[in-house]
Amino acid sequence: MKVAVLGYGVVGVGVYEMLGKAQGLEQGPVLVRPGKADAPFKVTSIEEICADPSVGAVAEVMGGVSPAFEYAAAALKAGKHFVTSNKALVAAKGVELKALAEENGVAFLFSAACGGGVPFLHNLSLARRSDRIQSLGGILNGTTNYMLDAMQRLGMDYGQALADAQRLGYAEADPTADVSGLDALRKIMLACAVAYDRLPTEGLLNEGIENITAADVAHFRGRGYTCRLLARGGQNPDGSVYAFVEPVLLREGAAECSVLENYNLARYEGACAGPMVFIGQGAGRWPTASAVLRDLSCILQGQRAMLGESCRQAKADNAALEQLYYVRLPEAFAGRLEAESAETENGVARLITKPMSVLKMHGLAREIRAAGGELFFASIGG
Amino acid sequence: MKVAVLGYGVVGVGVYEMLGKAQGLEQGPVLVRPGKADAPFKVTSIEEICADPSVGAVAEVMGGVSPAFEYAAAALKAGKHFVTSNKALVAAKGVELKALAEENGVAFLFSAACGGGVPFLHNLSLARRSDRIQSLGGILNGTTNYMLDAMQRLGMDYGQALADAQRLGYAEADPTADVSGLDALRKIMLACAVAYDRLPTEGLLNEGIENITAADVAHFRGRGYTCRLLARGGQNPDGSVYAFVEPVLLREGAAECSVLENYNLARYEGACAGPMVFIGQGAGRWPTASAVLRDLSCILQGQRAMLGESCRQAKADNAALEQLYYVRLPEAFAGRLEAESAETENGVARLITKPMSVLKMHGLAREIRAAGGELFFASIGG
Repeated sequence: MKVAVLGYGVVGVGVYEMLGKAQGLEQGPVLVRPGKADAPFKVTSIEEICADPSVGAVAEVMGGVSPAFEYAAAALKAGKHFVTSNKALVAAKGVELKALAEENGVAFLFSAACGGGVPFLHNLSLARRSDRIQSLGGILNGTTNYMLDAMQRLGMDYGQALADAQRLGYAEADPTADVSGLDALRKIMLACAVAYDRLPTEGLLNEGIENITAADVAHFRGRGYTCRLLARGGQNPDGSVYAFVEPVLLREGAAECSVLENYNLARYEGACAGPMVFIGQGAGRWPTASAVLRDLSCILQGQRAMLGESCRQAKADNAALEQLYYVRLPEAFAGRLEAESAETENGVARLITKPMSVLKMHGLAREIRAAGGELFFASIGG
Repeated sequence: MKVAVLGYGVVGVGVYEMLGKAQGLEQGPVLVRPGKADAPFKVTSIEEICADPSVGAVAEVMGGVSPAFEYAAAALKAGKHFVTSNKALVAAKGVELKALAEENGVAFLFSAACGGGVPFLHNLSLARRSDRIQSLGGILNGTTNYMLDAMQRLGMDYGQALADAQRLGYAEADPTADVSGLDALRKIMLACAVAYDRLPTEGLLNEGIENITAADVAHFRGRGYTCRLLARGGQNPDGSVYAFVEPVLLREGAAECSVLENYNLARYEGACAGPMVFIGQGAGRWPTASAVLRDLSCILQGQRAMLGESCRQAKADNAALEQLYYVRLPEAFAGRLEAESAETENGVARLITKPMSVLKMHGLAREIRAAGGELFFASIGG
């Protein structure tokens, strides 16, 4: 099967090279936008690719919703299988693309869009056909894991860890999507869509790591905890889906604590299969390209969809799940939270809350910050 | 697709129940051997199943090579897809079954035979189509992991740990296949066949855990090591395959150290994908049944094979890979090994060897034992 590649950046070059060696796949034209770097078999319009009867599949690795969506729609309508590593595209337009793929009898797969090289979505989509997925999530952003690990193991402060991640190419010049948790949130949206046929697009909550300090890390490290930024999703008793991102404090010995540097860990819990954990490289040229290639191999073997026929957009409900939280905030604001225990030093309070819902904790944090209180929080356990 | 089940023991019951709920699959007849427990839709001959045109696939979960092989061959010749959790069957007859499946245009999948619920072989078979698998292996036997973990974390001695594993149903009344490493060896044979098109059936080496003592555990725990029984495979520079099982001492923080109780961990290292780790339940009714069901879902999606067309039996070569070993043996035998460092107490020597091949270490252990020397060894690192 000849595969056209849309985009010839970090991942595109990897996909193109791997196509040259993979069983049953062939290098096709590469779409490069005017003014962008040169590429082999370069074409500059999606129409050319759609009109080429020798192209069986299109792999999109450009990123961004537009023009990726228009290109994807054109490819699907032209009867080309479509695979992508573009989480923003699938988070925004996944349900539409699924419908287009069904109408045209072709495949739409996107396991490279969540977990990079980690074959999470693929296995989740298989497992859900015979098992009930009770919960899912994990460390889905390598940049923030690199930073948290550097703060915890190497004793760096936040600014040093961020600068280091940027120097190594793990963080963008503008790291907002990573450190705010938005990148991980988009990935958990996709995982929920695969597991539950609900793509949650409203009611989502994301707390990133922008507010963590070296003093926070020292505090919970001394108590045997490691901090990781976890994305989490699952189904509430009423059938609605929860989906959120927040820092979590984990006891040493948890699999998440063995995930160092910019690695990813994804997990699901199947009613029959039990807990299932996947660890690997979450980003980078070759890991991401290898995930794109795996999707293409799945198409060769006959797979067509990762989203169920009934998949639709839905509102997330984060009010049901209750947890304990570690919260560091100015003493003056401590009374806003019901605490299980509290320590205060130099006007800074560190609390462990009573069980409270994810929705309530994220809402209180917003209120306290709006009133001028600097605050960091992390759930306990996970 | 209607699925016949061969065997109605621990796993068979699970497969049958899961078939009742899975997308696109249906409960078919269950083959129960005369004198065995009753089952729904019971039949007592494979001929009846083969002659039933409504049966699309056969799932074998009886164990043992015979009559499982004869049943498998009959099912494949009758044009039924065949999936199995039976590692002994695939280790002995995998290449023949693959050929039969190809001839008859049906599927032969066996991911439940290695790693229980962990989707290792499935992902390996996908990855190898576009990536080069540099090495593979892991904790593939839950019984011995339970025992090693109990010795390390709970301070049990070997006898207590074994009795505990038997009480919990993790170890058979005759635990030889588990504690000798044979069970893990069969699983790594299958993984090599999937990754390298070579099913190694000669030249294999397995050192189990029968010789580990509480004193060994205390010794390396004090030095920051955790012991795990690892199966390992890979390709030597000349294209031959290595495959062996042995205890390995790992630094705390390695993902293997976070694998507690009877869990399994499987990993491969892809030239492109990098290291990929899978953790989950390695045995038991529901995890194993869920792996059988996943294979059946893959057949529905179009997958037909996990073994390449050129897969054949081959001899393993364990002479190339060199490692350091920890060896505990009677002082009188210590001179037989080239040591990097050594400690001696009460006539017992504990050495760290210079780098030596797997073949040489396992051979020396055999010689020293034949001469009456009690010995435990474990490679360092892994």
